[in-house]
Amino acid sequence: MSDILDRLDEVLESRRQAAPEDSYVASLHHKGLNKILEKVGEEATETLLAAKDAEQGDEAARQALVCETTDLWFHSLVMLSHLGLSHREVLDELSRRFGLSGHDEKAARTP
Amino acid sequence: MSDILDRLDEVLESRRQAAPEDSYVASLHHKGLNKILEKVGEEATETLLAAKDAEQGDEAARQALVCETTDLWFHSLVMLSHLGLSHREVLDELSRRFGLSGHDEKAARTP
Amino acid sequence: MSDILDRLDEVLESRRQAAPEDSYVASLHHKGLNKILEKVGEEATETLLAAKDAEQGDEAARQALVCETTDLWFHSLVMLSHLGLSHREVLDELSRRFGLSGHDEKAARTP
Amino acid sequence: MSDILDRLDEVLESRRQAAPEDSYVASLHHKGLNKILEKVGEEATETLLAAKDAEQGDEAARQALVCETTDLWFHSLVMLSHLGLSHREVLDELSRRFGLSGHDEKAARTP
Repeated sequence: MSDILDRLDEVLESRRQAAPEDSYVASLHHKGLNKILEKVGEEATETLLAAKDAEQGDEAARQALVCETTDLWFHSLVMLSHLGLSHREVLDELSRRFGLSGHDEKAARTP
Repeated sequence: MSDILDRLDEVLESRRQAAPEDSYVASLHHKGLNKILEKVGEEATETLLAAKDAEQGDEAARQALVCETTDLWFHSLVMLSHLGLSHREVLDELSRRFGLSGHDEKAARTP
Repeated sequence: MSDILDRLDEVLESRRQAAPEDSYVASLHHKGLNKILEKVGEEATETLLAAKDAEQGDEAARQALVCETTDLWFHSLVMLSHLGLSHREVLDELSRRFGLSGHDEKAARTP
Repeated sequence: MSDILDRLDEVLESRRQAAPEDSYVASLHHKGLNKILEKVGEEATETLLAAKDAEQGDEAARQALVCETTDLWFHSLVMLSHLGLSHREVLDELSRRFGLSGHDEKAARTP
């Protein structure tokens, strides 16, 4: 499943070129950084609330948290794209912090 | 680079078992969901501020945004883990929304 | 100007009794706490972005910040009202922290 | 109780002149707008979490919500002060929106 973010990146770049009225991604880029960041903040809030509800909730509440977290990640990917960055820099940074490059896998398992 | 989230997941689960005083991840789980969510909210705020600074900034400002987004994703992964979920459910949801399953790769490229 | 919050409190309580389709305040209460908190989080985000823009901006940017902060305070007042609280408890707490009761005015001026 | 915000304003301006090591308010101004906004975002998050806990909670949970809302308002006042604004512009805007000027008090009671 690991190439999903790479493939999503291609989709995001492709849709960015579309007409704003044809694509949600294009409309976000067209409206500009503040609108994108408003969405990041909004989805962060909804993620917090969904997590509180999931703590005591049922499977539907857990699925709602997955959806809100997906919204949060998605809009943060659009934010990165808007500023010429992508998930690759984020995964590189995670990899660097946790020693997760391919050769370090064994080490990572015994922190 | 694509397996980084899978390998990070192993690290997060491994560290969760550690003593709270030995591991930041363990200490977050020990303090509970509210503390984890405080961190998610805090990093969301810092991501917004870093994005505003990166818009007009130099390479250092862009790198700072990468670090804050990494913090945001990392703490949202800890949140998911705390509630028995993982990045897999989020990537599945992204994949479902964008038709990114392996067989649909070509279609995804021409949305 | 100091009684504005007291008078706003009366307005908020009055409108809470209205039909949801006739009053924004009533509609928020009707939709419940999560909807109210989504608005608090959304306005907090917009306040942060407006403050960043006001830092380097003109008078219009400063006025926009006033409007966003007003939205934030307003929705936090609705939140308090929804949970049986009001601005009075917040002002009491501010007063307590800063020694601002009527008799302490002089002391407050020379912290 | 109504002059509390006016008197707090005097305190905030007075402490702003203090040495950063002597006053929390002075230290916030010294660190700059981003630090102040980080605190606004942090307290907004903690307010949301406290409100969720207060919904099902006891008196202590309600008091915790009052404290978090107070933190949120306090740091938004420091933000306004940092940008040359104050609670007066916010109360004016609330007053304007709700027709709460002194002469309109009766009207405000019957919206």
